[in-house]
Amino acid sequence: MILEVADIRIRPGQQAQFEEAAHRGLSTVIAKARGFRGYKVQHSIESADRYLLLLEWETLEDHTVGFRGSPAMAEWRGLVAAFFAQPPFTEHFKLVALPGTS
Amino acid sequence: MILEVADIRIRPGQQAQFEEAAHRGLSTVIAKARGFRGYKVQHSIESADRYLLLLEWETLEDHTVGFRGSPAMAEWRGLVAAFFAQPPFTEHFKLVALPGTS
Repeated sequence: MILEVADIRIRPGQQAQFEEAAHRGLSTVIAKARGFRGYKVQHSIESADRYLLLLEWETLEDHTVGFRGSPAMAEWRGLVAAFFAQPPFTEHFKLVALPGTS
Repeated sequence: MILEVADIRIRPGQQAQFEEAAHRGLSTVIAKARGFRGYKVQHSIESADRYLLLLEWETLEDHTVGFRGSPAMAEWRGLVAAFFAQPPFTEHFKLVALPGTS
């Protein structure tokens, strides 16, 4: 399992509209993508315009190849890109297991 | 519930030692803090020196007042600060509920 973290800054004052659009896109467009396992939308307490989208994918390629190479990518961006104050910063993460566990 | 996200860059090549120290500090020092509910250590796939520590707290103040004002803060930093390439960037987040849910 891979965690995609999209660090997003939106235009000021558009929180409610962005949250609605993000949830709609995540629960309709992205939810249908192969390998997609779930998501959380996290809103910064200190930075009102900052969100972290935490998305779980079965494999890295399910996101970077499968989703990004599909028409769903444009559909998703069509829903949310207008709210972005700057391009999101996205990286992928692997859970580090506790020593002695797997 | 509050999510603390600590965005950490470590000195190159010290992944194994940092991961061991972080797990030890989280599972011994921070685990005893009031309001602490759990953690994950996430390692970036694209940036070998980057980690996200995701910590759950009952309230914001459990971290910012209770933990940061306790001797445990210095104990934790004593375990991990030597690995930091720069000061960590930490913010707190609230889960955004799906529209129509609470």
